[in-house]
Amino acid sequence: MKTGAGLAETIVRRVGANEADPHDLLAVEEPLEIRLGFKRGDRRDHKAISITMRTPGEDAELAAGFLFTEGIVRSADQIERIRNCGPKVSDASGKAERINSVSSNTIRVDLMDGVDADLERLERHFYTSSSCGVCGKSSIEALNTGARRITDSEGTKVDSSVIHTLVDILRSSQNVFEQTGGLHASALFSLKGELDIVREDVGRHNALDKVIGAKFLAAETPLSDRVLLVSGRASFELVQKALMAGIPIMAAVGAPSSLAVELAKEFDMTLLGFVRDGRFNIYAGEERII
Amino acid sequence: MKTGAGLAETIVRRVGANEADPHDLLAVEEPLEIRLGFKRGDRRDHKAISITMRTPGEDAELAAGFLFTEGIVRSADQIERIRNCGPKVSDASGKAERINSVSSNTIRVDLMDGVDADLERLERHFYTSSSCGVCGKSSIEALNTGARRITDSEGTKVDSSVIHTLVDILRSSQNVFEQTGGLHASALFSLKGELDIVREDVGRHNALDKVIGAKFLAAETPLSDRVLLVSGRASFELVQKALMAGIPIMAAVGAPSSLAVELAKEFDMTLLGFVRDGRFNIYAGEERII
Repeated sequence: MKTGAGLAETIVRRVGANEADPHDLLAVEEPLEIRLGFKRGDRRDHKAISITMRTPGEDAELAAGFLFTEGIVRSADQIERIRNCGPKVSDASGKAERINSVSSNTIRVDLMDGVDADLERLERHFYTSSSCGVCGKSSIEALNTGARRITDSEGTKVDSSVIHTLVDILRSSQNVFEQTGGLHASALFSLKGELDIVREDVGRHNALDKVIGAKFLAAETPLSDRVLLVSGRASFELVQKALMAGIPIMAAVGAPSSLAVELAKEFDMTLLGFVRDGRFNIYAGEERII
Repeated sequence: MKTGAGLAETIVRRVGANEADPHDLLAVEEPLEIRLGFKRGDRRDHKAISITMRTPGEDAELAAGFLFTEGIVRSADQIERIRNCGPKVSDASGKAERINSVSSNTIRVDLMDGVDADLERLERHFYTSSSCGVCGKSSIEALNTGARRITDSEGTKVDSSVIHTLVDILRSSQNVFEQTGGLHASALFSLKGELDIVREDVGRHNALDKVIGAKFLAAETPLSDRVLLVSGRASFELVQKALMAGIPIMAAVGAPSSLAVELAKEFDMTLLGFVRDGRFNIYAGEERII
């Protein structure tokens, strides 16, 4: 785990505990603009498609994971390159410009020639400009998730004793989280409970996008033999992202929402909540828990 | 507090605790589409401007609070009416349609004639279609918050003993939250620690929009003599919304982010974090804490 990158020092006045210590750490939150580059006719064009408040670090994974879980791209080979797009700085002669290579707050994902990104899908996600799109349909229909039913093999099962160990393993891998209490974490485990990857962010959807983006860029999706653990609550949005990545088992330290449970049931995902203190609840997909 | 409205029953399999009890409660999460109605020339038009995942209830307050904290409207008298826009149902004759009056997942806010809503501002909030908008500026500049500096009187102070009581008062007013662990809460208190209003939602920004929206519709903004308590972490977005409502003191049960602290300092807000267990940290605006 990288620590430090996601942390900022600050001076606080403490009341009621450790009053003499003015030093404190904060989880860093910065905006990231994700731009999509694509060919139109003969010329390259690019367009800003999202601004998210994130903890800097693994921005390429975040951008790739976002594009994949939102249904904009489907495979890593659709992406030509991903690069930070720092401020352009003119040199003394005024003739040259350089692209700053350090982490910036804009990242650009260039698609391969001929890749037809479903930008309309993204626009629908934010705006519905047609008449009352949410009326008269079930919530899940109206949200048009694009999620696919989980199609793992029948052997995808995990022992409840493994589930009980996941949170401790996650906590022991997290430094930033423990220091500040300000970060969400997402982690993937094998079916035997071995930690595969963990990512942290001030935004829980970003932590999950970073995890999925790393696997997506390594062409390891769908993640049909993995257990996902998220540090907070399980919302509709998180279940949707996990479904897009084909994750069959999702466990949350906190509570799931009604729509998270509904979505998990509809798409045959196993959803666990309150995974802590030697207990958990199974909200959907009990057949995968031994 | 209304309980029940934001709750759904479900059947769970429990592992490790209370294994014989299959009944559980979930926080309800449903999408809400917010539409803005306005006049263009002689005819009324309306446009979907946002879909948010929220817990149903106080939808009018949520919509009004969202429009106010996003800078789309500035005063309650700019709003002609707010109504649920349920599915249209033809009656047997096929001649009549009725608007369903029960809670639906679409709400429409009609502006008064001549009110010029700043829709471009909202679009900027989601997309930045000009070139690299986030590059080369400080984060807060780039986000173009529209927040105003807190301009309370010098007498706006709160005793630290009052701060220590806020969380217990909030918890004792919350039923849904305690039952499910799945809801965020926002509450306003007087400077003496008397509870004014509390709202709950699966989305923390929605809980705050509901609180601010209720006050906005009652023409009680700016909230210059109020203390805000939020149940989770303090993000940039929450501080921004509180600033739009002129709240001078914000307290969070969890940690603030770096950008939340930066924004609070820049706009002279008092920001407290880790307000629990008889302690808290002062991140900005110490002069308002006695």
